[in-house]
Amino acid sequence: MSIVVQDIERAGPDVIAGLADAGVATVHEAQGRKGLMASYMRPIYPGAALAASAVTISAPPGDNWMVHVAIEQVQAGDVLVLAPTSPCDNGYFGDLLATSMQSHGGAGLVIDAGVRDVRDLTEMGFPVWSKAISAEGTVKETPGSVNVSVVCAGAYVEAGDVIVADDDGVCVVRRKEAAHVLEKARARLQAEEEKRSRLAAGELGLDIYGMRERLELKGLKYV
Amino acid sequence: MSIVVQDIERAGPDVIAGLADAGVATVHEAQGRKGLMASYMRPIYPGAALAASAVTISAPPGDNWMVHVAIEQVQAGDVLVLAPTSPCDNGYFGDLLATSMQSHGGAGLVIDAGVRDVRDLTEMGFPVWSKAISAEGTVKETPGSVNVSVVCAGAYVEAGDVIVADDDGVCVVRRKEAAHVLEKARARLQAEEEKRSRLAAGELGLDIYGMRERLELKGLKYV
Amino acid sequence: MSIVVQDIERAGPDVIAGLADAGVATVHEAQGRKGLMASYMRPIYPGAALAASAVTISAPPGDNWMVHVAIEQVQAGDVLVLAPTSPCDNGYFGDLLATSMQSHGGAGLVIDAGVRDVRDLTEMGFPVWSKAISAEGTVKETPGSVNVSVVCAGAYVEAGDVIVADDDGVCVVRRKEAAHVLEKARARLQAEEEKRSRLAAGELGLDIYGMRERLELKGLKYV
Amino acid sequence: MSIVVQDIERAGPDVIAGLADAGVATVHEAQGRKGLMASYMRPIYPGAALAASAVTISAPPGDNWMVHVAIEQVQAGDVLVLAPTSPCDNGYFGDLLATSMQSHGGAGLVIDAGVRDVRDLTEMGFPVWSKAISAEGTVKETPGSVNVSVVCAGAYVEAGDVIVADDDGVCVVRRKEAAHVLEKARARLQAEEEKRSRLAAGELGLDIYGMRERLELKGLKYV
Amino acid sequence: MSIVVQDIERAGPDVIAGLADAGVATVHEAQGRKGLMASYMRPIYPGAALAASAVTISAPPGDNWMVHVAIEQVQAGDVLVLAPTSPCDNGYFGDLLATSMQSHGGAGLVIDAGVRDVRDLTEMGFPVWSKAISAEGTVKETPGSVNVSVVCAGAYVEAGDVIVADDDGVCVVRRKEAAHVLEKARARLQAEEEKRSRLAAGELGLDIYGMRERLELKGLKYV
Amino acid sequence: MSIVVQDIERAGPDVIAGLADAGVATVHEAQGRKGLMASYMRPIYPGAALAASAVTISAPPGDNWMVHVAIEQVQAGDVLVLAPTSPCDNGYFGDLLATSMQSHGGAGLVIDAGVRDVRDLTEMGFPVWSKAISAEGTVKETPGSVNVSVVCAGAYVEAGDVIVADDDGVCVVRRKEAAHVLEKARARLQAEEEKRSRLAAGELGLDIYGMRERLELKGLKYV
Repeated sequence: MSIVVQDIERAGPDVIAGLADAGVATVHEAQGRKGLMASYMRPIYPGAALAASAVTISAPPGDNWMVHVAIEQVQAGDVLVLAPTSPCDNGYFGDLLATSMQSHGGAGLVIDAGVRDVRDLTEMGFPVWSKAISAEGTVKETPGSVNVSVVCAGAYVEAGDVIVADDDGVCVVRRKEAAHVLEKARARLQAEEEKRSRLAAGELGLDIYGMRERLELKGLKYV
Repeated sequence: MSIVVQDIERAGPDVIAGLADAGVATVHEAQGRKGLMASYMRPIYPGAALAASAVTISAPPGDNWMVHVAIEQVQAGDVLVLAPTSPCDNGYFGDLLATSMQSHGGAGLVIDAGVRDVRDLTEMGFPVWSKAISAEGTVKETPGSVNVSVVCAGAYVEAGDVIVADDDGVCVVRRKEAAHVLEKARARLQAEEEKRSRLAAGELGLDIYGMRERLELKGLKYV
Repeated sequence: MSIVVQDIERAGPDVIAGLADAGVATVHEAQGRKGLMASYMRPIYPGAALAASAVTISAPPGDNWMVHVAIEQVQAGDVLVLAPTSPCDNGYFGDLLATSMQSHGGAGLVIDAGVRDVRDLTEMGFPVWSKAISAEGTVKETPGSVNVSVVCAGAYVEAGDVIVADDDGVCVVRRKEAAHVLEKARARLQAEEEKRSRLAAGELGLDIYGMRERLELKGLKYV
Repeated sequence: MSIVVQDIERAGPDVIAGLADAGVATVHEAQGRKGLMASYMRPIYPGAALAASAVTISAPPGDNWMVHVAIEQVQAGDVLVLAPTSPCDNGYFGDLLATSMQSHGGAGLVIDAGVRDVRDLTEMGFPVWSKAISAEGTVKETPGSVNVSVVCAGAYVEAGDVIVADDDGVCVVRRKEAAHVLEKARARLQAEEEKRSRLAAGELGLDIYGMRERLELKGLKYV
Repeated sequence: MSIVVQDIERAGPDVIAGLADAGVATVHEAQGRKGLMASYMRPIYPGAALAASAVTISAPPGDNWMVHVAIEQVQAGDVLVLAPTSPCDNGYFGDLLATSMQSHGGAGLVIDAGVRDVRDLTEMGFPVWSKAISAEGTVKETPGSVNVSVVCAGAYVEAGDVIVADDDGVCVVRRKEAAHVLEKARARLQAEEEKRSRLAAGELGLDIYGMRERLELKGLKYV
Repeated sequence: MSIVVQDIERAGPDVIAGLADAGVATVHEAQGRKGLMASYMRPIYPGAALAASAVTISAPPGDNWMVHVAIEQVQAGDVLVLAPTSPCDNGYFGDLLATSMQSHGGAGLVIDAGVRDVRDLTEMGFPVWSKAISAEGTVKETPGSVNVSVVCAGAYVEAGDVIVADDDGVCVVRRKEAAHVLEKARARLQAEEEKRSRLAAGELGLDIYGMRERLELKGLKYV
């Protein structure tokens, strides 16, 4: 059955902005090392970064019809998250769809498939994380669904979840956990600050984290 | 049997230049979504782009002898298209061969294998699309063929076909179809211009393309 | 058994610097086309380049404890070479560990697994060659070994071997052979200079290398 | 946080048995082409087949501690479904664990990682679907969770969902939908019976399914 | 444009039968080491073997409509060769289509995608060489073409070419070259017979083929 | 430089036979989880198993000349271990070479590349572990080396090391450690016997190995 869920809840804009500042690696750690998409999901240009609410798309291989349907559901600041129903590297999305996204305030695209017109998208500053770059075109024949739960690049995503993405990849934060994760992320960033100073001053992690004894107990020998 | 076909026909320079302007995604669509090489074929630097007549090379794995043979067949504006006879990621080509190519007006390289000296090639502005970057050297022991038909990265290429390549990948246009494909590509670009304006103004693809009724007929439900 | 070998020999700094100047492709050729890591080992930013003595790490999948142990063994100019005991793409290393490395004069990281905080590492000018970029965190539960022989990305590495890495990949030079390889690399560079000039002037490799007769003997036909 | 959910609901044994009879391809179709694991999940021997309630395991890469924890939660007829938290091909499971499973009535294993002792498992008639066969051992250092939701080989699995697996792969059926899916699967099997007879008698799918007119409308030309 | 070419020429049945007897490895060698599909094309059961005339299918990813169209073009002894227009692992073909094929004398299937119902196909003795085994279903929405030239698993295939397939993989023989290739294959088989006897008697290839001198000239040293 | 080392030392036949009995998984564990080749190395038929002294081959991609050279170095019970100098899936070895091997008492082949004539090899009972099955032929143009150290499928192998291989993969045991590893393997087998009985009787690993307290300390919660 093909459906479009029109009413989705989103996390608060302050929480989303805070998660963007924290970045993928910190957010991923802060929420207990979960929610990370597979490492083959790469940004189309260095420095791409966002945090945004997910408008999800489940689409057949080689069929980008639902992207058009999904864009109508996009609110300012949202990101499209497209999961094909089976592995596909086709270019579901290019500069025309990016133009449409930007005119509605759409923030970017995360797609476990291909994207095209990457030079144009780069010039438009429209960030995309994808499995592939491919000019291969798609058809508009078979409906999928919008704003249903999907598995995208190995991560489970519900509509309205917060997507955090940067040069390190893409991480999903459950909408309801977002505020709590942000708190933890901030605490983590603060703690890292002190460690960074000590490490920069030449102290060793072995000493800062008190690892020597435990390593010895586990049998590590210096020869 | 190892042969070098010396006389190949090429498309006209205006047609080739026109296809370069259109770019891979548009050309691929304009010719009915065919001729695209596999998405693992990536440029060695962002912004690399060309359209050129193919001088094809069929070479054994790990043997770049035929590259030397092929360069003698290159005319100004040609691109080498190398297909190994079995999967290989060796660096068949580096800065010396690029120097040789440039001195004969060669425009670039498309290789379903590896390339090396990529920093030098980038500085020389010599564009390469390859499966891999690898310093692994090759031998000169077994002849292959030049200007025979090859399958390169999943696409069938005849000598003299037009290769269009940019950040989106590599597309092959049959020499005899090139003028016709260019016409279609230009029509497509024009049509896109109007759509781009409407999309930028906030109109939805759903409305521009009149998709709503057909989606309903196919069973899409809004909930 | 988990061990840390504390005393390793290194090649002389002049030899290491010379190998850096020669670059991966030349060094690989100079030593008889051996020692190259797999082509999936890519730098996290273009232009990354180094030659350095290897401090090796054998670590379990998903466990970066030994990185902390290894940094204590690093001397100015050394590079960490981490080989997981089975395939893994986790981000073993990020900006805090890079800070620690830099404070001890560490030159970079070669890892047959993942790395994270790549934007920070890029800004710090800390070069990394890795199989993956991934924010996926690791644990500190199971000791491995430091400065033992490892197989990293298909290449055998002993502690103290010279690692040469640039945009073309990563090559390992046996410590004891380093001076001899440098000599050969320099001879090769010199020989290439003359060939480059001749190729730039339009001479063909076919003539420079005298290939025509041998090609004919091997059966190549011009048609 | 590491948890073990002890009380999970299961589908009825008749429903499970019915789904086993239907097989993966039919069940996958009957539930609207969803729930299929990635095609790299292969049985360790031909003819392996089961339908069973999932006891799920989320485990770190290279750590099989939670398999021991999970077996205590297994009831007769259950199947273990193990998803590592990042890609791993280690052999988490071998003949000793299979012996333990069989002594508690465990029906099999589905693992997005490796398995070992496959000759023994084959002789024991203990079916496994895995990404890899590997003797690589694992540690017991870091807890994961049992009977939480996981993404296994691209499919979302909740504890108590019905796993259907055979030579065609592995499919997940939501527990609450299992009875309904079984109904649909049976209807499908019946419908196929009639079609099979007609196809066996030489009738064409083109005629049985009345495809000719629609193909013509879509532009198919016979030449 | 979607077309069905209805009239294709086929090689003679004696030639086809002869090529079947020779097998893939011999035929591939006999025709100068060309025409081999990628090594990921594997039979669904050991011992599968055929030689047959190709009825080719170009189909979109995830759409098996053209299989129905193609079966109408099948004559006794033909094999279907399906190439998706972009990478896809869906199960385009299962036991119903195999039933239809068998009722028209169809000999098998070669598909650069997935197949399902492999247990049934095995029991029916219907051989398939595929990239994947997958229960993932397909739609019938977008026409492709039948009996046009395709690139299947890296090999160029024209309708009516002879497909030779066995446990070693799949090889394509140009229809017009088939008789000549058979001759060469038979000569090769005969020559091998004598070599096999000598090798079985303990003679070394080094001596039978007179390799020692050439190895020495090429610099091989015994130490 | 291409060399053939003629005099290699081998482990004692009793030790080798003992390691064969223990099998890959046990031997790998007994020697501290090292020496395992990558999991893509698969036997060409189920039930293949051996332990044997390695005669190593370093060969260029697509060139099997050194196989002929190596067979002269084979003594009864030896296994060939072939590592190409860069990734290759060509069929370096087929039934003629297997005939030659068997006539000299050769026990099998481990090859990080392809093999062909697998039906014949299966009927001859000649076991092979390979990365690929491929009919693709090779040339005899470039010497490599025999009985030098190689990295094969990620494992470092010296000539005379003991190769243990079965359905679980391929493991390398250093020649000098072989007797010691055998002892440990036997101890392990004995210890497993008792555990197997207890597990078969329904005892849980949690109790046999006393894991409950440590799991609680590490924070595992039952809910």
